[in-house]
Amino acid sequence: MAVGEFDLIARIAARSRSRPDVLLGIGDDAALLASPPAGEALCVCVDTLNAGVHFPAETAPFDIGWKALAVNLSDLAAMGAMPRWATLALSLPSPDPAFVDALIDGLLSLAEQHDVALVGGDTTRGPLSLTVQAIGSVAPAQALRRDAAQAGDALYVSGTLGDAAAGLALLQGRIACGRAAVAKTLRARLDRPTPRLALGRALAGVARAGIDVSDGLLADLGHVLQASGVGAEIDLDALPTSDALRALQPQDEARWLLQLAGGDDYELLISGDPARIEALPAFARGELTRIGRITAEPGFAFARGAQPCDYAPATRGYQHFA
Amino acid sequence: MAVGEFDLIARIAARSRSRPDVLLGIGDDAALLASPPAGEALCVCVDTLNAGVHFPAETAPFDIGWKALAVNLSDLAAMGAMPRWATLALSLPSPDPAFVDALIDGLLSLAEQHDVALVGGDTTRGPLSLTVQAIGSVAPAQALRRDAAQAGDALYVSGTLGDAAAGLALLQGRIACGRAAVAKTLRARLDRPTPRLALGRALAGVARAGIDVSDGLLADLGHVLQASGVGAEIDLDALPTSDALRALQPQDEARWLLQLAGGDDYELLISGDPARIEALPAFARGELTRIGRITAEPGFAFARGAQPCDYAPATRGYQHFA
Repeated sequence: MAVGEFDLIARIAARSRSRPDVLLGIGDDAALLASPPAGEALCVCVDTLNAGVHFPAETAPFDIGWKALAVNLSDLAAMGAMPRWATLALSLPSPDPAFVDALIDGLLSLAEQHDVALVGGDTTRGPLSLTVQAIGSVAPAQALRRDAAQAGDALYVSGTLGDAAAGLALLQGRIACGRAAVAKTLRARLDRPTPRLALGRALAGVARAGIDVSDGLLADLGHVLQASGVGAEIDLDALPTSDALRALQPQDEARWLLQLAGGDDYELLISGDPARIEALPAFARGELTRIGRITAEPGFAFARGAQPCDYAPATRGYQHFA
Repeated sequence: MAVGEFDLIARIAARSRSRPDVLLGIGDDAALLASPPAGEALCVCVDTLNAGVHFPAETAPFDIGWKALAVNLSDLAAMGAMPRWATLALSLPSPDPAFVDALIDGLLSLAEQHDVALVGGDTTRGPLSLTVQAIGSVAPAQALRRDAAQAGDALYVSGTLGDAAAGLALLQGRIACGRAAVAKTLRARLDRPTPRLALGRALAGVARAGIDVSDGLLADLGHVLQASGVGAEIDLDALPTSDALRALQPQDEARWLLQLAGGDDYELLISGDPARIEALPAFARGELTRIGRITAEPGFAFARGAQPCDYAPATRGYQHFA
């Protein structure tokens, strides 16, 4: 069953919740949105997910919708911003209502968790692709920028690393796993990333530099190091590791590669004064693991605990056109 | 020659100009933008152009970039908004630097004309597709909404209608044209639409309803009629017609169909009190043609001058999934 473009927009509009700062939502040439409170700047990001590139073609539509918003909210979290609104540009090969409904359910269920209003969009015919733009706000002096890391900062990352990359490797048959619960846990980390918004808000004005880990720890840390003109030492033994990942891949070097160069973690990587980070509220401190430090010497160095370690990863992460 | 994703972003960033309200532009997880002046709301829209759907595959890359921004600025114009910033999500099958440079040149040359800063984006691998989000601002009470037309309003449209549809018909060989200059004029209207931003600003707080004509006059007017609960009478003899279109298609009914149901005009269609519209500054009044009136009876009626006319167009416009 096919529906027309305008029916599709009506279906989406009917399921979207609003916020008091949405003056005019879906259905006109553009949305009208009340500016954030004085002292806060707008924080704007955009990310595209293409079928077969950013998610496996067989991903459940609920998860596709979830992930399309999650990767954008993760960018706002990495700036320390409070999310407010999102738009969705959706290209579909054919407008199957059940597919679209599930996709929108996934996007809106995450939006509801974070009080984000879907305020506009575009639906077009084309290969399956979702471009979400998210808009939030943050006091500019408190934003977590890539260019703010300083030698002597401690490095922290949220959650655990490498799970999504392992989930993808399982899905693609590059790793085998006899335990269904382990495979399911890792696959869920690939399909439904958790944007660390509350943590990002807690870190705003406290941490110095911040980025979200989407293309792999080394690739994204590399952006921070380049923008800040510094280097980093990473303690391999400190990399936060889920039980599922350790069960799947007990061998250190193979696991490190998933954790250092695997993509799709959507965890926050931040640098800052350790005294200030350690003094964060318990929920925020509890999400973070200290994994190293910022150094004056450019480039990456590795350690195991206090001992420098002569380790060279085989790859540094994902580049779309590499 | 292929370039990596991060080179591509650097190429784009290097060519973008900024504005004083851009606190942090391309290159971080998100852009930081100063809120518009007090009393103005944000105005946010998004539109996708897919190769082969929204532009012919052989369109020059400069024109593709131009059009991707133009269709969004046209949406802001149709709200009466002042444009400020844009983001670009670009999917490319392969990153040919000459192609990307030309595409970005097209987008940025239009951006420069209207003092719009490109503040962020995403580049991904996939079929050629551009999703632009544009953000502007307007005092909410002055915005031109679809739901504000009233019986007794006069209807006006900017520029001329049907040129882009004729350009597409020429390109697809559905119409023949012996005069190269005519074909070139019509094709340019397809490839490089003119967003009516200054006109939109002049109309804010003066006109009542407004929409941009992207899917065809009847389709877009239909949205206004539906949202406002009114009807319209259109004077076929008053439809603004370029010399090129009249030269190509002297036969009335065939030309009307291009003008009423052809897409890609990106002209403004507005309704309002004729006394207020006629009193607009000369530049704005000069861009507008009065083409009919809003009626209390729902649906479309047609006239030729003062005489009602028994005309029924064969189609009402473009629906992506029809």
